[in-house]
Amino acid sequence: MTAYSELADHFGRIAALSNAIGILSWDNAAMMPTGAAATRAESMALLDVLRHGMAVEPRIGDWLGAAEADDGLGPWERANLREIRRLWTVQTALPADLVEASSKAISVCEMRWRQARTDSDFAGLLPFLSEVLNLQRQIGQAKGEKLGLSPYDALLNDYEPGGRSEKIDALFDDLAGFLPGFTQEVLALQARRPKAPEPQGPFAIEKQRALGLKMMAALGYDFERGRLDVSTHPFCGGADNDVRITTRYDESDFAKALMGVLHETGHALYEQGRPQAYMNQPVGQARGMSLHESQSLLVEMQACRSAAFIRFAAPLMREAFGGSGPAWEQEALLARYTKVEAGFIRVDADEVTYPAHVILRYRLEKALIADEMPLSELPFAWNAGMKTLLGVTPPDDRRGCLQDVHWPSGGWGYFPTYTLGAMTAAQIFEAACKAEPEILPSIGRGDFSPLVGWLRSHIHSQASLYETDELLTHATGRPLDAGVFKAHLRRRYGGEG
Amino acid sequence: MTAYSELADHFGRIAALSNAIGILSWDNAAMMPTGAAATRAESMALLDVLRHGMAVEPRIGDWLGAAEADDGLGPWERANLREIRRLWTVQTALPADLVEASSKAISVCEMRWRQARTDSDFAGLLPFLSEVLNLQRQIGQAKGEKLGLSPYDALLNDYEPGGRSEKIDALFDDLAGFLPGFTQEVLALQARRPKAPEPQGPFAIEKQRALGLKMMAALGYDFERGRLDVSTHPFCGGADNDVRITTRYDESDFAKALMGVLHETGHALYEQGRPQAYMNQPVGQARGMSLHESQSLLVEMQACRSAAFIRFAAPLMREAFGGSGPAWEQEALLARYTKVEAGFIRVDADEVTYPAHVILRYRLEKALIADEMPLSELPFAWNAGMKTLLGVTPPDDRRGCLQDVHWPSGGWGYFPTYTLGAMTAAQIFEAACKAEPEILPSIGRGDFSPLVGWLRSHIHSQASLYETDELLTHATGRPLDAGVFKAHLRRRYGGEG
Repeated sequence: MTAYSELADHFGRIAALSNAIGILSWDNAAMMPTGAAATRAESMALLDVLRHGMAVEPRIGDWLGAAEADDGLGPWERANLREIRRLWTVQTALPADLVEASSKAISVCEMRWRQARTDSDFAGLLPFLSEVLNLQRQIGQAKGEKLGLSPYDALLNDYEPGGRSEKIDALFDDLAGFLPGFTQEVLALQARRPKAPEPQGPFAIEKQRALGLKMMAALGYDFERGRLDVSTHPFCGGADNDVRITTRYDESDFAKALMGVLHETGHALYEQGRPQAYMNQPVGQARGMSLHESQSLLVEMQACRSAAFIRFAAPLMREAFGGSGPAWEQEALLARYTKVEAGFIRVDADEVTYPAHVILRYRLEKALIADEMPLSELPFAWNAGMKTLLGVTPPDDRRGCLQDVHWPSGGWGYFPTYTLGAMTAAQIFEAACKAEPEILPSIGRGDFSPLVGWLRSHIHSQASLYETDELLTHATGRPLDAGVFKAHLRRRYGGEG
Repeated sequence: MTAYSELADHFGRIAALSNAIGILSWDNAAMMPTGAAATRAESMALLDVLRHGMAVEPRIGDWLGAAEADDGLGPWERANLREIRRLWTVQTALPADLVEASSKAISVCEMRWRQARTDSDFAGLLPFLSEVLNLQRQIGQAKGEKLGLSPYDALLNDYEPGGRSEKIDALFDDLAGFLPGFTQEVLALQARRPKAPEPQGPFAIEKQRALGLKMMAALGYDFERGRLDVSTHPFCGGADNDVRITTRYDESDFAKALMGVLHETGHALYEQGRPQAYMNQPVGQARGMSLHESQSLLVEMQACRSAAFIRFAAPLMREAFGGSGPAWEQEALLARYTKVEAGFIRVDADEVTYPAHVILRYRLEKALIADEMPLSELPFAWNAGMKTLLGVTPPDDRRGCLQDVHWPSGGWGYFPTYTLGAMTAAQIFEAACKAEPEILPSIGRGDFSPLVGWLRSHIHSQASLYETDELLTHATGRPLDAGVFKAHLRRRYGGEG
């Protein structure tokens, strides 16, 4: 066997273990009875240890050296080596005691956070969050030294390979200069319009589920390689060729679950569209979190809050719930799906205000990791940022800096990928619609195949063959900028549509 | 750390891995989309390899030697060492190439069997089944040499620790001398009675499920540590503190799913009742397959086909399905639940005819492993045995020797545990009812707590503290014999009730 094929076999085994972990994680969220939590935690911890052991086996380094000197490899194999080298560098950067200390601090802090959020008690969380932050900073330093990156960029790099805060600063500053003023314009514009009537529930869960399944089928989701279930926090997870999405149902508002299903279906189409030949290899993985989020937001926001989509979906909605009257007309439904509100909570935010929530978090976490701001000042800085970016001030930390699990659970460097994803979605959707003018008219007839076909060939099937900027340049002609996203917002929300 | 605590930690890790495998196996059967099969097979194979690696680590042998010389251990710890020694001996008995060859032969043969059964084509399966048999014989020889057992007893020992064919021969000969004549008596007796009217469906699946859940709750099944789902072949599986059962629904006959749920609940009560302190240790496991089957059959057959149970259940059944009229009277329902038929298919068999199916398979597999009969003669020997034991001849091999997956899938030595379980159930139930006369009257009121309380303290909580004969002697005053089972059949079916 060649060094390359030894590596491919080894990473195939790691993928087999990751697939098991993926299904168990899905089960945790969607199926597991409460009393099994402690037993399951032991299984998950053991599988993580086994996977980590496989990922840092010294022979990987030997194989890598030999394979990188092999001239006979094709572009996918070379890209696979690039990804394996990156994983190997990152995985071997951390001393075992740091990994363990961080894992323990996170599990304590996450538990404390649940209570602190309920009680709106930042002071009570502070020592535990401080410990997590301190260890994340050390992790960022250790990885950063190996990668030649700042601690924050080293953390970011795990979620967004090749992502650099210097570029994100520029993109986000551009947006932050535009959004506050634009948001106020949109709010004023929407306030002048007559209030659209709302469909009245209750909307039976079984009917909501049936409508969701119909939409998934229309989008080309492969039910032979996935499922739709329920969980408290909707997600797309599972394993290779077993891409499971979840949603949650609100009987008084069917739009939440439906839009959630469309969003997760966007993620799932990406996962299902990765190339079979490299499905279990690092090069066959999705290209980072911002591209992943771009696929969900492209489906949910770009495609499915469009007038074209509502033209197709409105009759199906009426049919699903026996709806009739003004609230069920296309105009009213579209107004509802594009309503803007300056709120406190990120996960409830709309397309226009969402980036402000993300920019705030990005700036704060960057300053905290760089030790440019004491953690104790977080609530004050948070509320000041909300005022500047969104014009509102949270009445308490529960609806302020305690709302998200990311920081207590060690997810530092993740937040920017949400808005990078939104911008990427706009840029990709525009390029797709230019290349295939039939995309939007087809969506109006419930035919997503021109859109999904284009995504399959330009994004999904490319997996991690290219670095992110390169992939985006191949697909859209240039690396990411804020232009298309801003134009999209102006067109849809600014009265220019 | 002492050698004992090193061992306990190590076997705790093996349990954590087994729990992961248990949930994934459940998922395979109850949740997994069809297109995920190949990916899942790789995950399962990898986890099996990892578990095998952990089970044969040489330091186990060192720890065992040191721990067995430790005078300070209590009875549970000593019993744990006894179980660990048994596992260690068996696991290290097999050369790796034999394990791999057997695993490959089984997966090919199982696939072939599905087609062969459909086509009723024994000749087509013969070479593949022959390969599996040959490898099972080698496995039995290798384990037998280490254990001082015949190859068949060594295979049996994996399912029924301490089980010996010499004893089973005596028990089964006793039954085989009684059952053929008795079965004909019962059939004649039932033929003379007027045919009981049958409840007419369709019975909606949701209503069947609700009734099943109600019965599980009445039995004391802990829903915080388990679930009820659907699969093609009902089973009880999952993990420690996560005991999941499945059933399948027939809309024309609610009794199938209901009795299936009761059966699997019996298994689940055993699993949920194992002691928390040893839940993840070998000594904390259920005491072999015949005891396990005894718990399911005790609930399904002994408790829930009794007149007392039907007195409680009949009104709930009527309520669940809106049933009324003669078919829903206690007498008619009881007649239905105790109907005897001499059929071809084991899994459809009733309490009276089931042992004949098992005795046939036991005698055949013992002869085949001992090489006392050529595999090519199996169909002929099967049909001859059916004629002798049950008085019927299968019209084809699909309804004959090809009906069960056990042999193609390498489950040689498993069959006798079904009927050992039925006999054990009768003996335990009789002892319980003698010790607690309230058991049957309470069941008539839907109160299973006297029965389940007795089982909890005498069987479930004992786990593998004792060897099987010892456990049964503690619980019932003597080792297993066929007497109580025969008396039970005579009482319920022989017109002596």
